[in-house]
Amino acid sequence: MKLPSRVKLVDVGPRDGLQNEKAQVPAEVKIGLVHRLQDAGLTEIEVTSFVSPKWVPQMADAAEVMAGIRRKPGVRYSVLTPNMKGFEAAVASRPDEIVVFGAASEAFSQKNINCSIAESIERFAPVVEAARGRGIAVRGAISCTVGCPYEGEIAPERVAMVARLMKDIGVQHVGVADTIGVGTPRKVQAAMEAALQHYDLDSVSGHFHDTYGQALGNTLASLEMGVWQYDTSTAGLGGCPYAKGATGNVATEDVVYMLHGLGIETGIDLDKLVDAGAYISDFLQRKPNSRASTAILNKRAG
Amino acid sequence: MKLPSRVKLVDVGPRDGLQNEKAQVPAEVKIGLVHRLQDAGLTEIEVTSFVSPKWVPQMADAAEVMAGIRRKPGVRYSVLTPNMKGFEAAVASRPDEIVVFGAASEAFSQKNINCSIAESIERFAPVVEAARGRGIAVRGAISCTVGCPYEGEIAPERVAMVARLMKDIGVQHVGVADTIGVGTPRKVQAAMEAALQHYDLDSVSGHFHDTYGQALGNTLASLEMGVWQYDTSTAGLGGCPYAKGATGNVATEDVVYMLHGLGIETGIDLDKLVDAGAYISDFLQRKPNSRASTAILNKRAG
Repeated sequence: MKLPSRVKLVDVGPRDGLQNEKAQVPAEVKIGLVHRLQDAGLTEIEVTSFVSPKWVPQMADAAEVMAGIRRKPGVRYSVLTPNMKGFEAAVASRPDEIVVFGAASEAFSQKNINCSIAESIERFAPVVEAARGRGIAVRGAISCTVGCPYEGEIAPERVAMVARLMKDIGVQHVGVADTIGVGTPRKVQAAMEAALQHYDLDSVSGHFHDTYGQALGNTLASLEMGVWQYDTSTAGLGGCPYAKGATGNVATEDVVYMLHGLGIETGIDLDKLVDAGAYISDFLQRKPNSRASTAILNKRAG
Repeated sequence: MKLPSRVKLVDVGPRDGLQNEKAQVPAEVKIGLVHRLQDAGLTEIEVTSFVSPKWVPQMADAAEVMAGIRRKPGVRYSVLTPNMKGFEAAVASRPDEIVVFGAASEAFSQKNINCSIAESIERFAPVVEAARGRGIAVRGAISCTVGCPYEGEIAPERVAMVARLMKDIGVQHVGVADTIGVGTPRKVQAAMEAALQHYDLDSVSGHFHDTYGQALGNTLASLEMGVWQYDTSTAGLGGCPYAKGATGNVATEDVVYMLHGLGIETGIDLDKLVDAGAYISDFLQRKPNSRASTAILNKRAG
């Protein structure tokens, strides 16, 4: 089968990654990470989240980080905002895209964002309307599309249902997330197919965690369906504080290594990307959680 | 595309894994590992290597380990022997299969087994003849089928050439190994296709290292070709001392997790397998090098 010739990666390390790290990372280090990612060739970066600092203290510096970025032409900067409370501040930071964060699991929705799926859509609706009224793109993340730490397996129909609800309120793009990394290739393809009932191939992306080591197989399976956009996190930053045992977004480095090996263009310089991951890992005083990065850094060390 | 409904995994941890660990593991611990693997449902185990203890001190107890195993009906026990010197001792240990170890890279052959590819085949020929004369199956491992630490990329034609040479001397099965884990799905498929020019689907297996995190994607790509036999190593034991930066056979646990998720039968009990990997990892005083095992052990710990 023919794979896409070009893939776009959205590095979610600065937001999804650092939001789920214990360490408090100063704004200047986050800005330094964003700069290194864009220098490495990333064309979209999920920078931060405009949420209550009471709930997510790691993102209290959202406005400062967005203001401090030296914007590079051609790069899109996205931010999360869960409701109208954060929306004005988010818009003031001039994002290219706003991300709303839903779930395909009722229990996860309750535990993660304290409301039902239906209520979450109601909260998103005015955000989406306001964003689109100002010409800002909106992406909807659908978490737990394959499995949920509270409910177990999630039926693809649930994913299709949430995708339809998001479509109805004007969300332009959906991200199909395996938030706890339990997916395997066929299950992920079923979740993707469900989203593709309501969105076209250019408007669906994959977001895989590597908890059980499955993310690259799941990426390959999605590539085989023609899906060409993926969220990844440099150095495998992050995880999910609400899902026990769920550690780690797939590392951008590992995905880039596979894509380049497949002859797929990404526009990313893997060596510079490894540097970006090493930069933030050094700050966090640990090794990058990426096998490709580890191998490349070992090789450099001789 | 249709995937195989059943996959056979050969756990190479006791041999390929422990041979490449620095720690000297006592025979009784190796035997304990083999017992745990067969109790978990593995039906083939690469137990040990009959080689000079001068070169491979970790395998000096080969006869003791083979003699100590409580053999389970239906399980095949394989051993390596590089030449006629080790052959008699290997045969005396009553293996079900003898493995000879070649390479698709001339430089790797020289550095790893101190002879050219052609010379290695000459050395294997009497081993293969003697083994088959006694009704013992022979498998040929072809290392560096995708890349070599000394030569870089390896052309599929080289893999086909070595497969043909192995076929000519009577080797019944070839293992296509990505010894340094640099392969990505299409390159691995090309190496597999090369081997399949001379062997049928039932006589080719995959052996992938996870150095760059690519092993599961490569396994999926091989499954899509119908390849249904793979070498894996519990807890990701081992690596390759001759290839800089090459750490880690793919963990059996990660592969089993994917296969079961795909609805493919393996006959393996993943929980018992995780116990086997934890047993040897505890002895080595480190954590299992397997994401699935880590996630499952975290979950158990609560």
